[in-house]
Amino acid sequence: MSDVVVGIIMGSKSDLDVMSGAAAVLDRFGVGYEVRIISAHRTPEEMMSYAAGAEGRGLKAIIAGAGGSAHLPGMTASHTSLPVIAVPVKRDHHDHEALWSSIKMPSGIPLAVVPENGADNAALLVVRVLSLGDPALAQQQAAFVESLRAGVLRDDEAVRADWKAMLPST
Amino acid sequence: MSDVVVGIIMGSKSDLDVMSGAAAVLDRFGVGYEVRIISAHRTPEEMMSYAAGAEGRGLKAIIAGAGGSAHLPGMTASHTSLPVIAVPVKRDHHDHEALWSSIKMPSGIPLAVVPENGADNAALLVVRVLSLGDPALAQQQAAFVESLRAGVLRDDEAVRADWKAMLPST
Amino acid sequence: MSDVVVGIIMGSKSDLDVMSGAAAVLDRFGVGYEVRIISAHRTPEEMMSYAAGAEGRGLKAIIAGAGGSAHLPGMTASHTSLPVIAVPVKRDHHDHEALWSSIKMPSGIPLAVVPENGADNAALLVVRVLSLGDPALAQQQAAFVESLRAGVLRDDEAVRADWKAMLPST
Amino acid sequence: MSDVVVGIIMGSKSDLDVMSGAAAVLDRFGVGYEVRIISAHRTPEEMMSYAAGAEGRGLKAIIAGAGGSAHLPGMTASHTSLPVIAVPVKRDHHDHEALWSSIKMPSGIPLAVVPENGADNAALLVVRVLSLGDPALAQQQAAFVESLRAGVLRDDEAVRADWKAMLPST
Amino acid sequence: MSDVVVGIIMGSKSDLDVMSGAAAVLDRFGVGYEVRIISAHRTPEEMMSYAAGAEGRGLKAIIAGAGGSAHLPGMTASHTSLPVIAVPVKRDHHDHEALWSSIKMPSGIPLAVVPENGADNAALLVVRVLSLGDPALAQQQAAFVESLRAGVLRDDEAVRADWKAMLPST
Amino acid sequence: MSDVVVGIIMGSKSDLDVMSGAAAVLDRFGVGYEVRIISAHRTPEEMMSYAAGAEGRGLKAIIAGAGGSAHLPGMTASHTSLPVIAVPVKRDHHDHEALWSSIKMPSGIPLAVVPENGADNAALLVVRVLSLGDPALAQQQAAFVESLRAGVLRDDEAVRADWKAMLPST
Amino acid sequence: MSDVVVGIIMGSKSDLDVMSGAAAVLDRFGVGYEVRIISAHRTPEEMMSYAAGAEGRGLKAIIAGAGGSAHLPGMTASHTSLPVIAVPVKRDHHDHEALWSSIKMPSGIPLAVVPENGADNAALLVVRVLSLGDPALAQQQAAFVESLRAGVLRDDEAVRADWKAMLPST
Amino acid sequence: MSDVVVGIIMGSKSDLDVMSGAAAVLDRFGVGYEVRIISAHRTPEEMMSYAAGAEGRGLKAIIAGAGGSAHLPGMTASHTSLPVIAVPVKRDHHDHEALWSSIKMPSGIPLAVVPENGADNAALLVVRVLSLGDPALAQQQAAFVESLRAGVLRDDEAVRADWKAMLPST
Repeated sequence: MSDVVVGIIMGSKSDLDVMSGAAAVLDRFGVGYEVRIISAHRTPEEMMSYAAGAEGRGLKAIIAGAGGSAHLPGMTASHTSLPVIAVPVKRDHHDHEALWSSIKMPSGIPLAVVPENGADNAALLVVRVLSLGDPALAQQQAAFVESLRAGVLRDDEAVRADWKAMLPST
Repeated sequence: MSDVVVGIIMGSKSDLDVMSGAAAVLDRFGVGYEVRIISAHRTPEEMMSYAAGAEGRGLKAIIAGAGGSAHLPGMTASHTSLPVIAVPVKRDHHDHEALWSSIKMPSGIPLAVVPENGADNAALLVVRVLSLGDPALAQQQAAFVESLRAGVLRDDEAVRADWKAMLPST
Repeated sequence: MSDVVVGIIMGSKSDLDVMSGAAAVLDRFGVGYEVRIISAHRTPEEMMSYAAGAEGRGLKAIIAGAGGSAHLPGMTASHTSLPVIAVPVKRDHHDHEALWSSIKMPSGIPLAVVPENGADNAALLVVRVLSLGDPALAQQQAAFVESLRAGVLRDDEAVRADWKAMLPST
Repeated sequence: MSDVVVGIIMGSKSDLDVMSGAAAVLDRFGVGYEVRIISAHRTPEEMMSYAAGAEGRGLKAIIAGAGGSAHLPGMTASHTSLPVIAVPVKRDHHDHEALWSSIKMPSGIPLAVVPENGADNAALLVVRVLSLGDPALAQQQAAFVESLRAGVLRDDEAVRADWKAMLPST
Repeated sequence: MSDVVVGIIMGSKSDLDVMSGAAAVLDRFGVGYEVRIISAHRTPEEMMSYAAGAEGRGLKAIIAGAGGSAHLPGMTASHTSLPVIAVPVKRDHHDHEALWSSIKMPSGIPLAVVPENGADNAALLVVRVLSLGDPALAQQQAAFVESLRAGVLRDDEAVRADWKAMLPST
Repeated sequence: MSDVVVGIIMGSKSDLDVMSGAAAVLDRFGVGYEVRIISAHRTPEEMMSYAAGAEGRGLKAIIAGAGGSAHLPGMTASHTSLPVIAVPVKRDHHDHEALWSSIKMPSGIPLAVVPENGADNAALLVVRVLSLGDPALAQQQAAFVESLRAGVLRDDEAVRADWKAMLPST
Repeated sequence: MSDVVVGIIMGSKSDLDVMSGAAAVLDRFGVGYEVRIISAHRTPEEMMSYAAGAEGRGLKAIIAGAGGSAHLPGMTASHTSLPVIAVPVKRDHHDHEALWSSIKMPSGIPLAVVPENGADNAALLVVRVLSLGDPALAQQQAAFVESLRAGVLRDDEAVRADWKAMLPST
Repeated sequence: MSDVVVGIIMGSKSDLDVMSGAAAVLDRFGVGYEVRIISAHRTPEEMMSYAAGAEGRGLKAIIAGAGGSAHLPGMTASHTSLPVIAVPVKRDHHDHEALWSSIKMPSGIPLAVVPENGADNAALLVVRVLSLGDPALAQQQAAFVESLRAGVLRDDEAVRADWKAMLPST
């Protein structure tokens, strides 16, 4: 599945460090994606045509990240009928304005909101969606969940053996 | 598509008035669903077996609503690899505790959060997901979006004609 | 000045009771306006063309009201170079999400935010702007400010005479 | 237009780093301005006479920045009939008190609030206002918006070429 | 002590129901006061002259109540060197904006803030201040504190006897 | 176990409707208790002696409820070495001040905080504590948990049969 | 009392620095404990079996720490009838989501919440509980409280002697 | 006036850096004070006897600073009839819990709250109170206010001359 099926878009290149977390997850699962900088406020026409054309170009989902009074995720959801996942970007001295700007969408225009800066979970949500029609991907996902579990069990074993050894040194 | 493909679950029967909004949307789109009361805190074993068995029984997505320190949506997402959508239920005198209890899931366990009490948008998000593999549903969805647009255009025409006539009488 | 120079737009007819406060102020000052229902999410193309065409049609300012994850004011400001004033609409059980959705616009796209539900102050801000090039309007405005002052002085005189008589009966 | 038409005022010299953002924008557009330190609490008479005399001295707008329980913007708006733009100054360990102190002005005294520390947007709002009567300035503004758009397009092109190259090195 | 020694001022007659609580306390203690409606925003000159002249007219303290972006208490404190007590007025659908507008005064201009709508405690604080130089008033105050204590002891006795009888009937 | 082993104390008789929820739970479990009105601010000496003497009088735990700037729970914990459970009382127009006044106790003085107005859960926590040394009570508790589970299962069965019949009529 | 009677569990090894505060207190009091990493989301089955088996293995209380949308404390309380104490773990850039995820448990499932990051107070609460049936531990606790008091008295003596000497040098 | 007339008390020596701001102001005005560390939770008896004895020892006001769930200011106000001023101490990662713990005191027990960490304003409030009966102190206070004004005027002159020279270098 190396065709581009997911769009990762963000309002500014300063969001790239956060949003690259989505790309890393999709790389791991071999899901094809594209990365774009598209601003709801500075390039509104490009946003509109990107969103409106996404389905036709074969995309299955869009992950949209933005900070401040974030309009990109919600406006994207208004221009496509694909599932859109919002990543509220939260920086130092920010409050939850990006979260509030995405979480209270009006009835009729659904938007899936994941944790602030949680681009990895946005991608994992897309993987869950794509797995519905893709048994191989579903299997990869099961392996991933198992790896999370194994990591915790490993840590648990370590603390049970000697938890003081695991304290961060200061 | 009248098979049951969506589970609508909630922590208490008092959530039913909010969560019935999801059922109404799925009815409109002819998407099969089931309604269940399952409490993360009071029937944790049932929750676990419901979530773990959902995929095997043919479900494609789970919409989970709960209020207060809401654990049902997140715990459900931990026991299934289906997409799970959280509806934070918010009541009088409540604050945003149900939202906070769902929106900050740890890396690895994705949860799609929609507006507080936004069960209709949760269902519309599921419709977007299901439309990916179902052209007929996709067409229905396009018609729905068009109907939203038509409603606003109709209201706009009315206010342009005589906006004072549209004020709520007091 | 009975030409239409101000656009009063809102996302839904349910905002009309709040936004009519702006119309009442403009009526008082004899400033021409139009009232429109335009939804950022449900009629995004209409929003874009309305905003982009506003200056050409002779508008001098746009007052945009919306609730929830309000995108109308900010998106309007992205499609016009007129001054845009945001009225965050706040309802029962709402929190400040409309305010947060407007107050943190990115650098480059200014938006003037007034109080939640403060449509009257939005219109008065427009009157201040229009007065810059209109001495007659400026004079009206001075009279208005004087009337505010007179109202307070009258109330003060009343409480000085007998404040207990002015208590609301219960 | 090199006459002084905008007053940039602030409550303390510690606000200068934030408020200089407004001066930078006005410099770019060739709009004349003056910078003043005027404290609502420590020099209330000076504040009053500055605001009351602003229109007579040819000012067209006042940009007022203050932190904490910020009274300067609102009190200035009470002493002039010019448009006043509030810049809530927010510092480390501060919460939104400056925003709350400006955003809930009583009916009758309009104040245009821009983002916390958003002095540049305050100035751009003034540019939008001044452009109403100044075609040359309007043209400059259009060029500025175009430059914002070009910047995003350039960044988009770069990430499309090689987004990993644009990640901040750590 | 029937001379007027306390000024009870408020921004609008709609604050009278809250602020009358201060008058009731001062009546009980026989402390002379005056009630005035003075708006920081609508009658700023009157506010200034009231505050500046208060000490000369024999006042010992000013209790200032206001809601929304409340500037009256802080501005009053800037124009007098008497102790000023702020009563943040909080109404339905309001948030804590009046509190934030008073509690973060800049260094140098002290303001004593009491509970939202706590006009009675504002007056009791003034009584504590006036008692410093007035043994008779101090004695009255001691009796008042004793009466509070007696009320609780009486209630305690009643619940100990039969607490179910004291439940509000529904 | 009909001896008095739990103290249910509250700052004012207006807290009785909330706090009676604790008594109802203890009645159900046959745990002996006493109900007292003791104010940290109005009867501080009584509070101190009540708390200091509680252990000697055979109490095993104290449930303390108070609203506003609630000092009763924390101060009680300072005067006894029994487990103290705080019930933050939250009323209309209140915010979370009672919660904040209890939840951030300094290191060294533990306080167990339960939900705002959650007096029933406070009592259930005490039942868990008392069950440690009382097998009969532990058995009762197991039955109680089972009854909670049974209630949810019954509701689930009902919604599975006909969920529309369970909607609240409006 | 060197048997293991307290379980200290946490959702991730990154919580260990906070949660080790509980271990330090229990060490001081000679109370036996075990440290485990158990994730509600990544190892839900292990969580369930740990909680369900705790009582049988002789535990008397469980201290559960987790951050973000913290489900570990509340879910643990659903699977055991032991007293469970929640430590909301709060990190940089976090808000109070862990607190909200624990403090609003539904009626029937009690959870004792202590301060954010207050693992030491969680352990002290457990000590208070264990002291009910253990006079030697009660005596140790009394000595501990006395040591707190002595520390403050010593600091008080020092500031009374020369408070300027105690200022942190900068 | 070098007798001790003001008590500056705080809950912990870690509050000393904040609270020393009050001492600095009182030193400037020549008002006698004492500095004490008194903990509401760790030395409650000492707190009670300090507060109860303060008036008898000649104190005229108490300034009480504490962080977290701050009980010291409110409890002190319950044990004395002197004016008590609360300084909510706010540290990194703290929220406003100390403010909420002081600002919502119950009716009958007044507490004057000043800004978080605003110990200097607490002392200036005391100076305003003491000035009521002390013309020399009143004169000092007038000079102080004048010096604040002069400082702002001086800064204003500097920015008017060359504001760019006053920017912090970076």
